[in-house]
Amino acid sequence: LIGGSLARALRQRAAVGEIVGAGRGEASLRRALDLGVIDRFSTDLPSAVNGADMVVVAVPLGGVGEVFAAIADTLPEECVLTDVGSAKGSVVAAAVRAFGRPPANFVPGHPIAGIEKSGVEVSFPELFRHRRVILTPLLETDAGAHRRVRHMWQATGAEVIDMGVEHHDEVLAATSHLPHMLAYALVDSLARMDDRAEIFRYAAGGFRDFTRIASSDPQMWHDICVANRKHLLEVMEHFSRDLDRLRLAVEDRDGEAIMDIFRRAKQARDNLYLD
Amino acid sequence: LIGGSLARALRQRAAVGEIVGAGRGEASLRRALDLGVIDRFSTDLPSAVNGADMVVVAVPLGGVGEVFAAIADTLPEECVLTDVGSAKGSVVAAAVRAFGRPPANFVPGHPIAGIEKSGVEVSFPELFRHRRVILTPLLETDAGAHRRVRHMWQATGAEVIDMGVEHHDEVLAATSHLPHMLAYALVDSLARMDDRAEIFRYAAGGFRDFTRIASSDPQMWHDICVANRKHLLEVMEHFSRDLDRLRLAVEDRDGEAIMDIFRRAKQARDNLYLD
Repeated sequence: LIGGSLARALRQRAAVGEIVGAGRGEASLRRALDLGVIDRFSTDLPSAVNGADMVVVAVPLGGVGEVFAAIADTLPEECVLTDVGSAKGSVVAAAVRAFGRPPANFVPGHPIAGIEKSGVEVSFPELFRHRRVILTPLLETDAGAHRRVRHMWQATGAEVIDMGVEHHDEVLAATSHLPHMLAYALVDSLARMDDRAEIFRYAAGGFRDFTRIASSDPQMWHDICVANRKHLLEVMEHFSRDLDRLRLAVEDRDGEAIMDIFRRAKQARDNLYLD
Repeated sequence: LIGGSLARALRQRAAVGEIVGAGRGEASLRRALDLGVIDRFSTDLPSAVNGADMVVVAVPLGGVGEVFAAIADTLPEECVLTDVGSAKGSVVAAAVRAFGRPPANFVPGHPIAGIEKSGVEVSFPELFRHRRVILTPLLETDAGAHRRVRHMWQATGAEVIDMGVEHHDEVLAATSHLPHMLAYALVDSLARMDDRAEIFRYAAGGFRDFTRIASSDPQMWHDICVANRKHLLEVMEHFSRDLDRLRLAVEDRDGEAIMDIFRRAKQARDNLYLD
């Protein structure tokens, strides 16, 4: 989804020359070729990066280290390397493992865009338009490489922002990783209840929107849990305490405490979006 | 929203004669009149039900008892009484308090439809189309009254289903009341974090849908918490245990347990809806 949408967006803006798809899954690479998303493909990573100006690693977080290791020896000196992972600390660590230290041309990135579906078939060039892309350049990062990655994402219509690695992972744990845990845990919790068929039959209007993110790719989210474990655990504990507080307020029939929580939440949500 | 949308739907289908709005808030009754949603209004409940064939109580759950008490003496013998509350046990209890025992013409009801906005201004006649309305008739309920309420909701395009009071409250606690608690608790939890401005700025795509229900009316949801307290507490405890289990799986780096939860949830969600 992410790699294909980036390729389509750059092609549409004529911001790219040849696009080479690389990976292990020949079937999906062939589909990408048939769809005109890529110009050619290779299932051999070391040779695929030959002659590349820019390598974008767009695989689930658990596979990033393996990709880095596979291309470490053949990545051209001047080639810019970036990724699209939803957690950045683990990607930087993987780069250190593969390259000895973070390459000067390595610019960690994270487009905050996505839908619950995966695969090149559902990719589309507008995915990043008006979305934010966070780059987390390191002290070692070359200014020119940083600029080239920024320009690439700007060409897709995204707003590009810089942030520290640690701070990125904290903020995304709260705003993205935690909500996914809640949606997965809720749907699974209901699915394991005795009267599950009936429960889902009467799922009310808001339920559909609320649980949409539980349709996201399990492997991708498993990898995010592992990659951003520390920060995710922190926000999960924080949230559990807050949910306990609400449960106690309901138990104690503490109307004022309940209303405080609901009012603050509604105000914060209303200030965020005009639906 | 609910009362106004019902009035609009019945009018559109020519399934209603005169529509009388009744309540304490003269301003909103006047708006309903100006919008053509009602034919006249009254702020005096006892006299408002004079000559009525059907009375639909569409107020937050905390106000239902007061409305029942106000109309108990003047409700015409043959008039059918129904309500739209999201929890049914407390409404039945309120009817017993006001009338001594559940009136034979009383048919508790719950349209499973709604948006996070409230008020007659946002009401629309299609709100109930293809939605479910659950009726929870009692042993005492007259078959003719039951039929009239069913026909009324069918005229709005809804599918009408019967269910026991207790079972309704259990199922709705899981599918509607619990998700609202999670959305409110999450948004409030994030809103009280130190870097709240930044956190919300980077809220990812799914966050908007996930938190939409946190924009719902706080008073209405406070009342639902109180009215369905017992069942809500049960599902909150159940969910908290399941969330703890997921947190422990992340803590223990138990990839299999994480994947099990995510896969089951995705499958259940995908089977429910084709987004």
